[in-house]
Amino acid sequence: MKVLVANLGSTSFKYQVLDMTDESCLAKGAVDRIGEASSHCRVAIGDWSDEQTMPVPDHGVAVEACLRQLTDPEHGCLKDPSEVSAIGFKAVHGGRVSGVQLVNDDVLDAMSEMNSAAPAHNPPYIAAMRTLAEKVAGIPLVAAFETGFHLTIPASRRTYAIPREWTDGWKIQKWGFHGASHRYIATRMSELLGKPDARVISCHLGGSSSLCAIQNGESMATTMGMTPQTGLPQNNRVGDFDPFALPIIMQHTGETLEQTLSRLANECGLLGLSGKSADIRDIEQAAAEGDADCQAALDVYVAEIRRHLGGMLVALGGADAICFTAGIGENGDAIRAAVCEGLSDLGIEIDTVKNAQPDTNALGEATIHSDSSRTSVWIVPTNEELIVARQCCQLLQDQNQ
Amino acid sequence: MKVLVANLGSTSFKYQVLDMTDESCLAKGAVDRIGEASSHCRVAIGDWSDEQTMPVPDHGVAVEACLRQLTDPEHGCLKDPSEVSAIGFKAVHGGRVSGVQLVNDDVLDAMSEMNSAAPAHNPPYIAAMRTLAEKVAGIPLVAAFETGFHLTIPASRRTYAIPREWTDGWKIQKWGFHGASHRYIATRMSELLGKPDARVISCHLGGSSSLCAIQNGESMATTMGMTPQTGLPQNNRVGDFDPFALPIIMQHTGETLEQTLSRLANECGLLGLSGKSADIRDIEQAAAEGDADCQAALDVYVAEIRRHLGGMLVALGGADAICFTAGIGENGDAIRAAVCEGLSDLGIEIDTVKNAQPDTNALGEATIHSDSSRTSVWIVPTNEELIVARQCCQLLQDQNQ
Repeated sequence: MKVLVANLGSTSFKYQVLDMTDESCLAKGAVDRIGEASSHCRVAIGDWSDEQTMPVPDHGVAVEACLRQLTDPEHGCLKDPSEVSAIGFKAVHGGRVSGVQLVNDDVLDAMSEMNSAAPAHNPPYIAAMRTLAEKVAGIPLVAAFETGFHLTIPASRRTYAIPREWTDGWKIQKWGFHGASHRYIATRMSELLGKPDARVISCHLGGSSSLCAIQNGESMATTMGMTPQTGLPQNNRVGDFDPFALPIIMQHTGETLEQTLSRLANECGLLGLSGKSADIRDIEQAAAEGDADCQAALDVYVAEIRRHLGGMLVALGGADAICFTAGIGENGDAIRAAVCEGLSDLGIEIDTVKNAQPDTNALGEATIHSDSSRTSVWIVPTNEELIVARQCCQLLQDQNQ
Repeated sequence: MKVLVANLGSTSFKYQVLDMTDESCLAKGAVDRIGEASSHCRVAIGDWSDEQTMPVPDHGVAVEACLRQLTDPEHGCLKDPSEVSAIGFKAVHGGRVSGVQLVNDDVLDAMSEMNSAAPAHNPPYIAAMRTLAEKVAGIPLVAAFETGFHLTIPASRRTYAIPREWTDGWKIQKWGFHGASHRYIATRMSELLGKPDARVISCHLGGSSSLCAIQNGESMATTMGMTPQTGLPQNNRVGDFDPFALPIIMQHTGETLEQTLSRLANECGLLGLSGKSADIRDIEQAAAEGDADCQAALDVYVAEIRRHLGGMLVALGGADAICFTAGIGENGDAIRAAVCEGLSDLGIEIDTVKNAQPDTNALGEATIHSDSSRTSVWIVPTNEELIVARQCCQLLQDQNQ
């Protein structure tokens, strides 16, 4: 079974094709500038790569273009588009709809109901999925919701202190996101530790960031809440914030609630703190050159990771392993060091040499803790596409039974 | 020097009179039903107590009435009202104004600016302070702001991930509250531990609740944020909540932002979760009788205390002591046990017998940890009035220099 896993932006379409007989990646590609006069369609299959420039008016045409490249007679990895058993999506917020779902009108309606909760994520996915549902006939579309991994979180850790009818009726609860990534870490750490009931804290630190407390391979707590704007500060999203500060902001700006929330979702987080960039590499460089706002952005980001790391530690009653993943988690040695600083009383101690120059295996994995650390500390590159592809396979197999 | 410390409600006036030569409490009293046809004015001085019923139209008349009782020729503790050197208030939110301040128009204006941030607290204090300022001539009024103790929190732990001009210009930051209580615990735990640089986590659990991480007697982190509606779930206030859920609530109710925030500040917290009561004693009893919503309320409250306790542990790099105080903290053995459950890997272990039947000293203080616990666990009754009285003395002494 071959699965195409899509990563959608409002004007982009990135994908991988996985052969699920051995979980190998057959191809990676991307189409950008969708809707502009000319788009670039890139693909890499083994050693061969191709780039074509053409008008791509919508995501349906983007998929058609990439299927043409994937079936290239000489270099393609597919003989026919029909070999693709499913197109899988890492869908963000379905509210009342979670888990792994064949995309249909009800799934898309449920996602639409959460547009205000996930303004950066849901609208482009819904638009692209509707287009693909119309134009790419014959290949099932599968939505693997980011909230799905967190359905195991105990009620006490996913419930806000609000009336029950708001929780049950309106689905206002801590949903959590980054489910594909945390699920991969849960699975992979269980293998690496050889301990299925291990207590693991997964630190997904990247353009957006969240932590997840994992036990027995299941999510027990996570940092994002009702929406992906909460939890840790994100690239340009605010993270945890006091709703009672909204009237004060609105009084100063004269803007509406909608405009104010839009600012919190687009002009805050690392971008808002630094006043310069949403990219931590820019911020680290500027901080090193003496920019106080950029240093403050790093300090707040680390303080918030530590605050939530503590919550995870207590939720699990201690941790067997802490695992750093995603762009910042895998590459940000200064952030990792700052997160773990001064925690030897709690059994967490990294080796500064290993942290600065991790001795990685072929998958990019490494341990970075000191010999005396009771908790092991890991770098493990995540693989969200593999999780989505596995979930697509499982859904199709379940449906064929 | 004698100080009258006032605790104001919108229709009540409770107070203590402290003799600061030996920090003894000379009198305790209360006036309730202010503004109604008849009010009760109660006072207890040593073994003598008195209750009078009379019309008390405002807080100014309430103070006059209590000063008459305090100067009772036979039983009073004062010869003349002029013996009161100051009336001290535990003021909640002054935004740009914090610390200990003589009440004047600027202080009252600053508090007014924060009315929407502390809707349950600021308006009645401002009204009563204005009345007293007019009517009780000759006795200085001193506002000891609850935010004052938290001014030592490092910037990284008090800054939201928002643009700097919102923080610096509009004072939108994690202010923290319950400052008098946490300051008392900081001072008292330093004495009890005989270790001025001790790392202490103060758990003020009561009608409203917050945690505070203390090192060297100073606040290093706390759970409440810009406003006292955040942090732990409160009796009827929501605690931490996702601002991006507001549009979804408003869509369902058809209400305004103001109405929605009012619901979050009045119909949420333990009241909202339980659907029955804001009082944990009622909730515990109903849960014991099988009420699932009340059990859920307790579970969420404990889970949130634990989540924030973890944040404090990491902020301090471990704790020498955890201290429970205020109504629930001092009396809620089931809550204390649930908060500390399963934390032996993190060095925290209570003795179930000691917890259930604390062996308290004359001040009601006791330890409840097991012999093997690396962190000591304490019950210490708080004394906010003593802190306010000390702060009043200090301010007056500083002004006389």
